Amino acid sequence: MKHVEHIGIAVKDLGSSIAMYTKLLGAEPYKKEEVISEGVMTVFFDAGNTKIELLGATREDSPIAKFIEKRGEGIHHIAFAVDNIREKIQEKTAQDFALINSEPKDGADNKLIVFLHPKSTGNVLVEMCEEKG
Amino acid sequence: MKHVEHIGIAVKDLGSSIAMYTKLLGAEPYKKEEVISEGVMTVFFDAGNTKIELLGATREDSPIAKFIEKRGEGIHHIAFAVDNIREKIQEKTAQDFALINSEPKDGADNKLIVFLHPKSTGNVLVEMCEEKG
Repeated sequence: MKHVEHIGIAVKDLGSSIAMYTKLLGAEPYKKEEVISEGVMTVFFDAGNTKIELLGATREDSPIAKFIEKRGEGIHHIAFAVDNIREKIQEKTAQDFALINSEPKDGADNKLIVFLHPKSTGNVLVEMCEEKG
Repeated sequence: MKHVEHIGIAVKDLGSSIAMYTKLLGAEPYKKEEVISEGVMTVFFDAGNTKIELLGATREDSPIAKFIEKRGEGIHHIAFAVDNIREKIQEKTAQDFALINSEPKDGADNKLIVFLHPKSTGNVLVEMCEEKG
């Protein structure tokens, strides 16, 4: 893993959460992007060395809606940047990590993404992401 | 806030978690430090641009033991580096954030630390930390 690309945070209400994080971080969000396939609206803050990504559900069957229903809002995942996501999928599978999706899918912010299952990572949802060329 | 200084992760068993994170991150931890006052053993990994701090309880009444009892292991807090923690305490109080401790206390890794209460930060435990001179 190269570095922490972003920290994803599930929120109930994007409007009030954007206001709160703007106050907390002392900076406005710089990007808002919908990932239609995932049923999620993403909002990005620059936290200096990494990004904070707010995640709001756009429909009831969104993974974010399900997460909030089960655990409440809060930190959803940690995303690590990788150079070659397909190599990393092979490496992590060989190391006995469980993957949620074994084929990279499109994420926000021009990324190919894969999630490791929290059952193999001490209850932490870990994303690996590669910048698309 | 300057940047994300570290991400704190509560773990049940430090031994097996150190092994898992070493495999996940592809790097050994570089530091282990007990914070006796908090009943916690901390283990640090360099994740490139920020640190991953594993938190293991050293006694039953440790905040980490209570956290795991209530929520299970997983991501515990996000820590932001600040230059002047006393100024930030005043600023965040004036902005209506709730603080868990209003007086800075000693944390691991030569830091003065303060926690904002998750009730005012969308269920995210936020730490502010200043490097001690």
